[in-house]
Amino acid sequence: MRKLLFEMAYDGSRYHGYQVQQNALSVAQVVQDAVEAVFKKREDIVGCSRTDSGVHANQYFFHMETALKIPADAAVIALNDRLPGDVAILSCREIPPEIAANFHARYSVCWKEYIYKIWNSQVKNPFLQNRALQVKYPVDAELLNRCAKEFIGTHDFRGFCSAGAKPTDNYTRTIYETSVRREGDLIEFKVAGDGFLYNMVRIMVGTLLLAPLGKLREGDVTRILASRDRDQAGITAQAAGLYLNRVSYTPFGEETTGGFCEVF
Amino acid sequence: MRKLLFEMAYDGSRYHGYQVQQNALSVAQVVQDAVEAVFKKREDIVGCSRTDSGVHANQYFFHMETALKIPADAAVIALNDRLPGDVAILSCREIPPEIAANFHARYSVCWKEYIYKIWNSQVKNPFLQNRALQVKYPVDAELLNRCAKEFIGTHDFRGFCSAGAKPTDNYTRTIYETSVRREGDLIEFKVAGDGFLYNMVRIMVGTLLLAPLGKLREGDVTRILASRDRDQAGITAQAAGLYLNRVSYTPFGEETTGGFCEVF
Repeated sequence: MRKLLFEMAYDGSRYHGYQVQQNALSVAQVVQDAVEAVFKKREDIVGCSRTDSGVHANQYFFHMETALKIPADAAVIALNDRLPGDVAILSCREIPPEIAANFHARYSVCWKEYIYKIWNSQVKNPFLQNRALQVKYPVDAELLNRCAKEFIGTHDFRGFCSAGAKPTDNYTRTIYETSVRREGDLIEFKVAGDGFLYNMVRIMVGTLLLAPLGKLREGDVTRILASRDRDQAGITAQAAGLYLNRVSYTPFGEETTGGFCEVF
Repeated sequence: MRKLLFEMAYDGSRYHGYQVQQNALSVAQVVQDAVEAVFKKREDIVGCSRTDSGVHANQYFFHMETALKIPADAAVIALNDRLPGDVAILSCREIPPEIAANFHARYSVCWKEYIYKIWNSQVKNPFLQNRALQVKYPVDAELLNRCAKEFIGTHDFRGFCSAGAKPTDNYTRTIYETSVRREGDLIEFKVAGDGFLYNMVRIMVGTLLLAPLGKLREGDVTRILASRDRDQAGITAQAAGLYLNRVSYTPFGEETTGGFCEVF
């Protein structure tokens, strides 16, 4: 059996998230259907992450096993021909046999990066419908950037996990890097970490957006983290501005050391 | 009666063009419905241009007359609340009484500018579905830029008008400016002129894209223009990459002279 690793990207607007669900269109469903058409039998695909309804991915990985000898490049073309225009296979590679047994698209992930896009203007933008959160009040990106730096480090993120989430015994996550940058009327919040709780990035954004309203000051993120109290944080920002941006199988900061799992 | 001039933008993906049609969703239809809800009676709106099915607009104007005294800014907010996310009212102003009688959103247009977006990559881009034409072979933007300059001037554009178009007795149009620029994998063709024949920009693009294939050389655009033969030009490029980008009520090059009709 060959083990293949596929890289894809998708506009999540039409989908009820990545995961297959009953009675709702999912990204995994349309990919699974295309895989079945190309590989002539139903091969289970294993995704790198869940994503919520309406969330996008600039980079997403899934693996599958197959006995067929379709070349990797031909599989990319064949799958893209069968997939709708909002789901794209970017690349495919065969996982070397010596690491295939231990490699898992989800469990082997070292860190992930998300982007959250904010359209900061009073003017409605028809091209960012479903792709960014419109915020009409003036947002000081530099202030958000300073507040966001307080997320960096290893913390108990209970305060930034949706109340409706399945309880877990480990709320500790490590955030490696954050940044908030403005380009014209578009503001991008970027965050990289070893893992994220349910709705964690969206609650981070909902909290940071309190700062321009004077309801969050520097030091408050640190205080909310310590409180581990969901009620201290801001609202959960809408899904539409969120993009899974990067998924890495190499420890953070070690991307230049080479080897298969440096997938970029 | 007040005469109002509205500026809008739309993502045309879902629409069968601007013009109201039977049994097909149009941009004018949804705007007309929103206008009816806000102004409490059916006011005819007069658009600045037709656009084809799937074509977008970064700037589009329409005018209407009304007896209601709704302030211009309030009308923008009220209309946007009722419009779908892919159609946005950008601004509204009352046309000064001294020029209102002679002002017409369509007939007063001095020039228009279109953009055509080309995604020049072998990699499928799920975020540019319906928003750009994917061209997989390498395109030399500088070569296209030189060829496109041959469109500048006053010419008979019969060779760049769809065969299916309603015959007209005037195929002469003046092109003021063209440019082709690359930014990463995205190439933008920009063209400004006093008017455009049916499918003219799309046939220009279909023709320019012959250059990287060695089927169009410098001087050929001039030759095709002179031939006035549609068969000498390239195919009609798909609608999805086309954007009405700017509509001006001031003569080309005189935007800085001030006055109401300098709408930018």
